[in-house]
Amino acid sequence: MPHSHRTEVRVRYAETDRMGVVYYANYLVWCEVGRVEFMRALGRSYAVLEANGIGLAVSDAHVRYLAPARFDDRVIIETTLTGVRSRAITFEYLISHAESGARLATASTSLISIDANGRLTAIPGDFRDTLAAVL
Amino acid sequence: MPHSHRTEVRVRYAETDRMGVVYYANYLVWCEVGRVEFMRALGRSYAVLEANGIGLAVSDAHVRYLAPARFDDRVIIETTLTGVRSRAITFEYLISHAESGARLATASTSLISIDANGRLTAIPGDFRDTLAAVL
Amino acid sequence: MPHSHRTEVRVRYAETDRMGVVYYANYLVWCEVGRVEFMRALGRSYAVLEANGIGLAVSDAHVRYLAPARFDDRVIIETTLTGVRSRAITFEYLISHAESGARLATASTSLISIDANGRLTAIPGDFRDTLAAVL
Amino acid sequence: MPHSHRTEVRVRYAETDRMGVVYYANYLVWCEVGRVEFMRALGRSYAVLEANGIGLAVSDAHVRYLAPARFDDRVIIETTLTGVRSRAITFEYLISHAESGARLATASTSLISIDANGRLTAIPGDFRDTLAAVL
Repeated sequence: MPHSHRTEVRVRYAETDRMGVVYYANYLVWCEVGRVEFMRALGRSYAVLEANGIGLAVSDAHVRYLAPARFDDRVIIETTLTGVRSRAITFEYLISHAESGARLATASTSLISIDANGRLTAIPGDFRDTLAAVL
Repeated sequence: MPHSHRTEVRVRYAETDRMGVVYYANYLVWCEVGRVEFMRALGRSYAVLEANGIGLAVSDAHVRYLAPARFDDRVIIETTLTGVRSRAITFEYLISHAESGARLATASTSLISIDANGRLTAIPGDFRDTLAAVL
Repeated sequence: MPHSHRTEVRVRYAETDRMGVVYYANYLVWCEVGRVEFMRALGRSYAVLEANGIGLAVSDAHVRYLAPARFDDRVIIETTLTGVRSRAITFEYLISHAESGARLATASTSLISIDANGRLTAIPGDFRDTLAAVL
Repeated sequence: MPHSHRTEVRVRYAETDRMGVVYYANYLVWCEVGRVEFMRALGRSYAVLEANGIGLAVSDAHVRYLAPARFDDRVIIETTLTGVRSRAITFEYLISHAESGARLATASTSLISIDANGRLTAIPGDFRDTLAAVL
């Protein structure tokens, strides 16, 4: 199992803005799609993690915008796991245009593990082990 | 206390789409702002209602789009309470351009009262009475 | 070619709200996805239509919410073309849960054809013919 | 005129997610509101800049999330201009809770000046001078 995962989205009209391109905040939505699908590809459902009382809250997000994505474009989100600690996970993302291969953005996010009351808590061992195994 | 309430929003760039106007789904967000402020103007906080375990879920929404709203426009949402029953509330909305007064959209929503498990439940009596008093 | 088309979306975390379900405005985004994919299935790209100076602006939207969609659910959008006139198109939508088949929402939208200046204009004949052929 | 500007938003239900807090991408929407209001406070309308054929596209965005914002919270966005060059502007943001004063997030964005074709172009001199005067 590689520690990267590729998923594709089609740009929605809703995601564009009056500049004719995808609004900048929406790249973070794509990063969410990327990391959820990354975990699913490893056999780990983020929905199940939450159903067990553990959430992963974003503590830091950084996006570099290289070229615009446009309505109806097919866009590849390549998600790479870059770190796993007892209470934190980091991912990097390469967002590119499916047809041309052009790089549209790079991004990174740090997530911390919290319980139902929003308090820092350890990531469940088996979940963390699954992620750590592909680092 | 009249049974209508006016609140104003400024169109955000995020709310526009590549047609250069506000994306159609976002009018429903403005309706949410309108009815929350309607309740607040009556001294009733929707946040407090939810903190007490009662949610108002939308069961029906209808929007007629008359003219486009554009980035940076100031927009008036006039919210009118049109019905209160034991487990349902209906609102109507007139969305207009603050400067020109032009009508941009009309809308209506029906909301039903649910408990924390998503089951239909009666709206708390004092909350309902406050709303019913302005009908 | 049937006059209905089914497409699937996976519920994004971004689409949920604090009630734990999909925020009501986001169903209109799914309707957009549904009708764009409907046109694509007929060999007609909405992006190309716009590149030729014609937009389809929503003039009316109506959603009935039957049951909540939740994070990570796979959701089917079944889009049905219900009317084609010289300057207007109507669609209906049935939104259901992919796994259980439960009906989540029904919706309808009316779209009008506008030029780059936002003025009503005729839908290009070949585009209209393609749609009308499946009515 | 100070080089910081404070504006306030009220958290919308639409902006929350199923974790019960504001979805992380929405902080970038608030940054947009903050910088648009910053420019307006200086007598400069971003809408007018765009009407004159110049757009400011975000090239880099970074957010640190310190504490969650919740539905109905009043949130202060304090926007500070940190740099003005011929074709780029940088802002920093402090997002805090209006009532408690708690810091919710810090953010920074870099914007580049583009023409109607998306090509890098100089920021109009008078616009740049207005900004530079408060650095």
